[in-house]
Order: sequence, then structure tokens, then C-alpha cells
Amino acid sequence: MKLSDPLDSEPQDAQIFDDLISNLRQTFFNYIKSGQESTDLTLDYLSPSQISDLVSLNPTDAGSGQNGIIFLISQLLYRPPKLLVEISFCNNFYLLIGIVQDVINILKYSPNTWNPGFMHKLYSSTSAIGVIGELVTAIMNSNGHIYLASPFASTVEILLSKKLGVLFGYDESKCGGLTCPGGSYSNNLALLVARNYYFPYAPLYGFALTDSEKILFDFKQPVIFTSNQSHYSIEKSVMMLGLGKRNIVFVKSGVSGVMDSADLEFKVSAAISEGKKPFFVNATAGTTVLGQFDPIKPISEICQKYDMWLHVDASLGGSLVFSKSQNYKEKLDGSGSANSITFNPHKLLGVPLQCSYLLVRDGLSGVRKQVSTNANYLYHKDDEIPSPQCTAESNSNKNYFGNNAECWDIGDATIGCGRKPDSLKMWLSWRYFGYDGFATRVDNSLKSASTFSKLINSLPDFYLFRTPTSNIVCFYYVPPSQKNHCFSGSQSLNGTSSRIDSLPIVHDESRLDFPEIWGTFTKSICKDINSRGKVLIDFASINLSKSSGELVRIPEFFRIPFNSPFFSISHLHVIIDQISSSALSLYP
Amino acid sequence: MKLSDPLDSEPQDAQIFDDLISNLRQTFFNYIKSGQESTDLTLDYLSPSQISDLVSLNPTDAGSGQNGIIFLISQLLYRPPKLLVEISFCNNFYLLIGIVQDVINILKYSPNTWNPGFMHKLYSSTSAIGVIGELVTAIMNSNGHIYLASPFASTVEILLSKKLGVLFGYDESKCGGLTCPGGSYSNNLALLVARNYYFPYAPLYGFALTDSEKILFDFKQPVIFTSNQSHYSIEKSVMMLGLGKRNIVFVKSGVSGVMDSADLEFKVSAAISEGKKPFFVNATAGTTVLGQFDPIKPISEICQKYDMWLHVDASLGGSLVFSKSQNYKEKLDGSGSANSITFNPHKLLGVPLQCSYLLVRDGLSGVRKQVSTNANYLYHKDDEIPSPQCTAESNSNKNYFGNNAECWDIGDATIGCGRKPDSLKMWLSWRYFGYDGFATRVDNSLKSASTFSKLINSLPDFYLFRTPTSNIVCFYYVPPSQKNHCFSGSQSLNGTSSRIDSLPIVHDESRLDFPEIWGTFTKSICKDINSRGKVLIDFASINLSKSSGELVRIPEFFRIPFNSPFFSISHLHVIIDQISSSALSLYP
Repeated sequence: MKLSDPLDSEPQDAQIFDDLISNLRQTFFNYIKSGQESTDLTLDYLSPSQISDLVSLNPTDAGSGQNGIIFLISQLLYRPPKLLVEISFCNNFYLLIGIVQDVINILKYSPNTWNPGFMHKLYSSTSAIGVIGELVTAIMNSNGHIYLASPFASTVEILLSKKLGVLFGYDESKCGGLTCPGGSYSNNLALLVARNYYFPYAPLYGFALTDSEKILFDFKQPVIFTSNQSHYSIEKSVMMLGLGKRNIVFVKSGVSGVMDSADLEFKVSAAISEGKKPFFVNATAGTTVLGQFDPIKPISEICQKYDMWLHVDASLGGSLVFSKSQNYKEKLDGSGSANSITFNPHKLLGVPLQCSYLLVRDGLSGVRKQVSTNANYLYHKDDEIPSPQCTAESNSNKNYFGNNAECWDIGDATIGCGRKPDSLKMWLSWRYFGYDGFATRVDNSLKSASTFSKLINSLPDFYLFRTPTSNIVCFYYVPPSQKNHCFSGSQSLNGTSSRIDSLPIVHDESRLDFPEIWGTFTKSICKDINSRGKVLIDFASINLSKSSGELVRIPEFFRIPFNSPFFSISHLHVIIDQISSSALSLYP
Repeated sequence: MKLSDPLDSEPQDAQIFDDLISNLRQTFFNYIKSGQESTDLTLDYLSPSQISDLVSLNPTDAGSGQNGIIFLISQLLYRPPKLLVEISFCNNFYLLIGIVQDVINILKYSPNTWNPGFMHKLYSSTSAIGVIGELVTAIMNSNGHIYLASPFASTVEILLSKKLGVLFGYDESKCGGLTCPGGSYSNNLALLVARNYYFPYAPLYGFALTDSEKILFDFKQPVIFTSNQSHYSIEKSVMMLGLGKRNIVFVKSGVSGVMDSADLEFKVSAAISEGKKPFFVNATAGTTVLGQFDPIKPISEICQKYDMWLHVDASLGGSLVFSKSQNYKEKLDGSGSANSITFNPHKLLGVPLQCSYLLVRDGLSGVRKQVSTNANYLYHKDDEIPSPQCTAESNSNKNYFGNNAECWDIGDATIGCGRKPDSLKMWLSWRYFGYDGFATRVDNSLKSASTFSKLINSLPDFYLFRTPTSNIVCFYYVPPSQKNHCFSGSQSLNGTSSRIDSLPIVHDESRLDFPEIWGTFTKSICKDINSRGKVLIDFASINLSKSSGELVRIPEFFRIPFNSPFFSISHLHVIIDQISSSALSLYP
């Protein structure tokens, strides 16, 4: 007996899901295939008002099947070749076909990240295995906050975090980690843990102390160090945690965009002599715009000397630990001494968004200690639920359980509650690709960036201003008709001076003064290219610091990350053709 | 020409995905069906060390296909009946079959939320449409931070947030919203926006001010008000934002668990007279343990009178706006005057985890203003990318674009960066179920809770201590052999006093003193039931405040949320049978 009129006479989700898969399977196949073969646009751009016509939200025509009927008629009149639907009859036929239509609209008017031409952001498509991982997670509707709600996912998260930690130089028996909903949140959690560790009164008292409390707690203004090339989430986290952005000290990054460790030590000393408490240094492994790596080893020594928390934001560059090339791998040297590391497999490893790890050298218990609020309605003590076996056993995996017994309910070590178990898709990807498969993915992307930068450097009108350190290539394009806009220092744009082995910007800060109009070229060309949708590319401007400390604005340049492992030479030429043909139409 | 040895000779993700779907389709069908028909366990419980044997992380045997070979052999020896795999040959055969095995392990040793017996947490299974929404999002690997990376998802998010706002009483032309990775993050963002609005110096200066700055900014200690029944994320957010937990004032919730608005006003006045600045009141619509609703209207009047931000945490109870029953719907009365509302469709609406909205009365621009750090490498000005059409047009949807033109890059209004576009699955669910379908889902869950509470109340040994306000039923069970453990006030457990219309706890605070041993009964029985895995249920203890202000600990009781829309009378009896049979074995 049913309690009331249910949604259907019986729950039919198994059948509905299977019917939808049956009707969408060909669409998904064509979508992925046409993306990877670059036969379609990367983006068929529509404005919000155009898309709003496709987004019906009228409650009265939803759930009625009416859209399915309209769709069938439109299919009779016009069948989109690449998203053809093999319609099979089923229960709720019109309703399901309406959903199929909606799915086709979503796919059609969103960027196809399977297309290597999607070079707009620091991620590309995922992989077939990544999608399956996400699908399994969704089918289970799994939640990674407590062990009992996700025994498999929690175990994977604990074990995989340790394996990842080892890649960065951590001790497997001590380290730990967890996933956060994106790199910003991982950075944020790292700063919070460090703040509460160094300022143990902060959770209860906050920072608005009375005079007597200031004396009692030996209050010193907390100071955070990061380079001016670091990701904005560091600044945002400082703002969020009530530390005050004035307490961020931006360390000089020099013309190369790499943190100057001598300047760091100088500024730490200065802060101490002003009676402040430097407690947190963020080193970036793979800066957002240039893809540069701060020197972790010397920074780590300074952190030890002055008792500060070292966090390495390796959201982007962390994937280089998988590289087979020592040149790339060693950019992470020293990360094993960092207190915490952010690493996003959703970038170069192609695990579906979101997948970000916060790895911690000294284990998850320390994180939990700093952020738990002991919500006992959810996080029961171990003796109240079927508990993890905490006995030390011979299998090395099993030894972990004793050390971290209190941390199986991972949610308590976060600032959230319910949480998507993002480790499952990472684990399935790890199982499919293996270490070597990840290495190939990463090295293919890096090689593509390197090949593209050489290509750029060999062409007239393109001005590569930096040999790429990782997977991001930054360059200008000056339309031939605008050749009079040279450096303010009036260097020639052609000939040997733009050869890759004599890039001026790395060595010669007097040549940082790019004409502002170069930024205008970049922005106009980018906008034009993106509206065509064949490829999607992006630009950025930055400020670099001269040795005098003076900040120089670098006008907008093309900043193209190579994330896909599937680039061919012809893809690279498409980008170049798009830029030069767009420039020709804009600046004839 | 390929740049290097790619992962395969050509990218084959379309084929791999299709092969995996082909091999997993029957498994998924059986998994959902056996869950919804409750023919299998809700959870086949394994300890972490047992699961670790299934979680191979050895880099050398991953990616090799070796697991597939082992799996095929095991299939010849033993085929699990419910997760039968119809193996079809394909490329990478052994590799893919290894993945199929891993997926089967994940499914087998995680809770099957499709089973209505999964009553452990405030969510149940998703729906077939929800899974399709997640699958499409994963296939696109879409990112909701900037418009160009997700035109369709961004448009849906903007429009759907407005429609949801209207359900809560907001003005469609003004309101806005966005998704966050869970209710805790939504609450956190609301508090951050309010903090920066009321303390505009906080982003730059933080709260550690010098004496002269205190005078300059007219510093007053910030104070936050919430009931002691509210979710722990409020306390955690206060801790996180550097406000200090000492600045939370817990308003009396009384024996009913509902915020006492007179006590709120009294405590606000007291804080003001102490020279502090009350600025934020959190009202809970659907408390975590009891499912109670704070009275929003009187709280809202107090907020207006004293110039404070009203946030309604309707993570759980927000779904009641869909109910066809006025009784339930009116529990949200007054929410239209709240500055912000958290609402989680991943709870009663069955949208896959995570799906949480922060809705804001005055639009998204205000949120952006308070949290943006103007990261121009990512969030370009409108004139630099193909921009949304901002002209006001006749279609009412289109009028939004003019008002919120600056907010199409939604990521800038969050504390994150890249973000999963959780609105797509919500939109597809809306399209499939329609308003009426959501209403039926919600009302079915509420009716199940109500029916169960009546059933409990009619049975000996079960002691319902509250008529459920929403979908959570809270009760004790006293094993017959332990009948001597009555109230300290020595009331009878049998007969008329436990009838639903004369529940003592609501009206009579002298009867709050439950014996501690009742909590022991609850915990032992719960642990035993969960280890059997037929159903998963949970317990909680709380503190309730007497009118004197004294807090009384209520020992652990069964706290069972009804989330699934598919309960039958027989499901309800299974729960009762599990409890009484477990009790009989534990307390013979």
C-alpha cells in the first residue's frame, strides 16, 4: 500500500534512467567525437537573452511533456546533424523527449571542452573514465562527510591523499589530505588552519581584542606573505578570514614572475621588527597567468627559520610531479617540507571539475583540530557507530587507520558539512591511466606548449615574451599594418632579437615597457576570435616588479594554456590562423 | 601529425565512454531497481581496512588491464546476482572491464540511497533526471565562473535563482542568487556579505584595529544571533570569518526548539547597551535535529527595527515552499523580507548532491560588491568579451540582464574561482517534475513522516516526544525488559499520556528530564541496526532551554528524517521491526 499518490504508480527511476541513456547515447557519442575531432565549433555563442528563450521556467508547462511534442515536430522539420537523436519509444515518452531536447540545447550552446580549441581556461575536457566516475557518484548520490554515509569514498579519499602526498615528498605514514570544492577553498582552508594554529585565541575571540586581551594573548598583527603573481584566492581568503588585506605583504616577483626569496626574508624581518607576527607564506607552483614556479626550497628554509606556515599553491603546477622530465618535476623540489599543498587534478590530469586536494604534511587530525566545532548530532564518537577497525595490521595501507582513527568522518575537518566525494573519480582515473598514463597526459600538454612557443617565435608579427615554464604560452601579436607600434625603447620586432634564446624580458628589465596599444590589439583580436567560436582563447595583463621595486604594468597579452593531451600541429596552426586572420579583418 | 606519443593513437573517449556505458548499463539499472524495491541491503558494511583491500593504489598495476583479467576469472567463479555484468567486447577490453569491476565495488560497498531504508541523513536518492543532469555537466566539464565558459549554465543559474526567490516572496525584478558547494558555504557567504556591508573597513583592515583606528571607524564589537538549535555552520562561519565565537549570542529556543523572538529582542537590546553592534540574525527554517521553524515574521521586524541583516537558513525547510498544504507552506512566511536565504534542493527535492542556493533579496550585484577582489585576469570588463545583451526588451526574462549586467560572471560573487554549475541538474529536474511534481515529492515525504509519527505513537515501548513539524520524526524506544527506566518525574510510559495530542514535551518543561539510560538504549540499538545494513538510521541529542534559561540535555533519541518520496506502510514497519528486534537481542 502506498501512503499517497506517488510520483508514479511505482518508482521507475531505473527504467527512466535507462530510457534516457538509450535516447541520449548517440548524442553523447557524437558530441565527444565531434569535439575531439574538432569538426564543430568550440562554442556556438549566444547572448543571455538568446539563451533565455531556450530556458523555460514557467511552472505550468514543465513536467507536462509539452516540450517533447514541440521537439518532435522540430525534428521532423530539421535534424541537427551532429546531435541526431535515435528516438526509441518508452514510458513517459513525450516527457523524456522534452528532457532530451533540453540536454541537446545545453550541449549545443556551451563550450565543447573535448575540442582542443577550448584554451580559454586552465582546464580542458575530462576523459571517458572521469565522466564514468562522476556518473557513479551521482547514481549513488554519495556524501563524503561521514564514514557511514560513504565507506568506500572515505577510504579512497584517505588513502589517495596519502599517495598524492608522497608524490610531493611527504612521509606516507604521517601525511593526509582531503578534497575541497575547488582550489580557492583548499587555499582558504590551509590559511584557516594556519591562522588558528598560530593564533589559538582567534576561534573564540576573533581579532577584535580589548587592550587587556591584547596583553594576555601577546597580540601581534598577523602577516601573510605571497608574491604579486599568486592567485587571487590568497587575497580573498585573507579578506574572508578577517585578517585584513593590509596584512598581506606582496613579495617581489621580479621580471621573471618568480618570488624573490631574499625579498621575502627582508620583508619578514621588517615585519618582525615592527612588532608583527609573520605566520603564513604562500608559494605558488604554477602561477595563474605565467605558469611560473616560486623557489620552494629557499622559501621553506626561511619559513623554518622564522616559524611560519608554508603553503604551496600547486593548483596548476602540481600535476608536474607526474612528468617524466626531471626539468619539470624538479620545479616542485622542496614541497615535501611545506605544511600544506593545494593540488587540482581537474586541471592537467583531466579529472572532472571539481577535484581539488588539500594535502597536509602532518596528517588530517591537525586540520580537524583547528576547524572542528564538535557537532555531535552528526559526528558521533567512534564507539557509537560501527567503527573503523583501528588495529595495526601488516598491510601498509592498514597501518594508517590507527594513526588517523579520529578522522574517518572527513567532513569534520572542513568548513562545510555535506560534501561531494570527489575522490572517486580521481581514483577511477588513477586506475585507468595509472601513473604512466597521467605522466603521458601531462608531458603531452607540456610538449604542446613548448612546440607552440617555438612556432610562435619563428613567425613574424608574433612576439613571444617568455619561454614557457609549464603549459602556458604568453605572447603578443602586432598586426602588420600597425608595425610602427614598437617598444617604447624602439627595439626591432623582427630578426634575431625575438629569437627564443634571447628573449629580452627575462633578462632585461629595461625592455618591460610594452606599448599600451599592444594590449588593445590583444583584446580586440581575442573578442573577435571568441565570438566566432572556432577556438576560445584568453588574455591577461600583469604587473611585474623591477629590482627597484617599481611595478610595471604589462599590457594585455595572449595567454594560452595547453591543457588537452591531444594537440596536433594542425591545432596549433588553427590558433595562429585565427589570430592573424582576425587581425587582418580588424586592422586591414 | 601528432606532437608525441599520445595516450592512444587517436583520442577515443567517445568510444570508451560508450563501451563503458554499454557494459555498465545493466549494472546501473539493477542497482537503482533493487534499491527502490528494497530487495537488497541499504548498506553492506565494511570497515576501512576491508575496503582498503579493494582500493588498489599501486601505480604499477594501474592502467595495465590486469584487474580486468582478475575480474573476468572471478566472474566465472561467482556472479553477484544483482550487479550482473553483460560483458561485451571492445577496445581496451581488459582495462575497461577492470574499471567495471571497480565501479561494482564502489556501488556494492556504499549505501544504496535509492533504498528508502537510507534514512541516515537529510537527503535520499536523487532521481533519474538528476543523474542525467549530473552526467551532462560532467560530459561538458563545465565551469560556472564566467559567462563565456558556461553561457547556458550561467543563464540558467541567474534565471532559476530569481524564480526560486519568488517562491520565497522576493521581488523577481530585484532578487538574485547563486549556487554554493553546500549549505554551509551558502550560510558562510551570507555572513561574509553582511559582515563586509556592516563593517566596511573589515576587508582591508580586518578586526585587529589600533586604538586610533577604532575611533576612526567607530568600532563596535560585531554580534551575531542564532538559536541554539541552528546548524553548526553558523558557529563555524563566525569562527572562520574572524568574528570570534564569543560574539555569537544564542537565543533561547524554548522547549519547542523554536527561536523565542522576545528573547532575541531582549538580547539585541542588551548588546547595544553594552556598546556592541548586533548585525546578523540567523533564523532557521527546518532545524537540523528537530526540523523546527523559527518564526521569521517577528524576527524580521526586530531586524528592521535594529538595522540587522536577516538570513534564513532554509537548507532543509526551504523545500516546503513547494508544498500544496498551507500548513507547511506558511512556515516560511516572512522569508520575503530576509536579506538572504539558503535553500538546498539536494535535500527534499532529490537533486544530486551538491545543490545549494544562496538567494539574495537585493540582487547579486550586492554580493559581488562585498566579495570581489577584481581579479582582472579572469573577470574582464564587459567590453572585452562578447558581452551579454544588456538592452531592456519586452520579455520579462530579458529585463533582468540590464539590472544585473555586471554579474554574468557569477564566480566573482563567490569566495571561490572555478565552480561546478549545479544549476543545470536543478533546471532539468524542474523541467521534468514541474512545480507540481516537486510539490508531490515534498508532500509525500511530509506525509510519510506524519504517518510514521502516528504509528509510533500508537505502539507500546515507542515514545514519540514531538509531533513532527516537517519531515523529521524524533522518538525514544524503551526495551520492554527495561521498563523501570521511566521519567525522573515518574510518569507512566503507557496509556493516554503518550497519545499524540497530549505530548508532554511541547507544553510541559517539567517533563524534559529524560533518563540518560534512554540515550544508551538509542545508541546501542542504532549501532546494531546500522551494522546489519537493512536500513540506516541515526540519532541525536540536543540541549533545550527552559523558560528560566536553564539548558536541559535531552539524551540521545532516534531522529529519522523522511526524505524519499516513495515510502510505503511496509517500509515504515521495517523500521519499527528493526528497532524492536534489535532491542530484543540487545536487551533480552
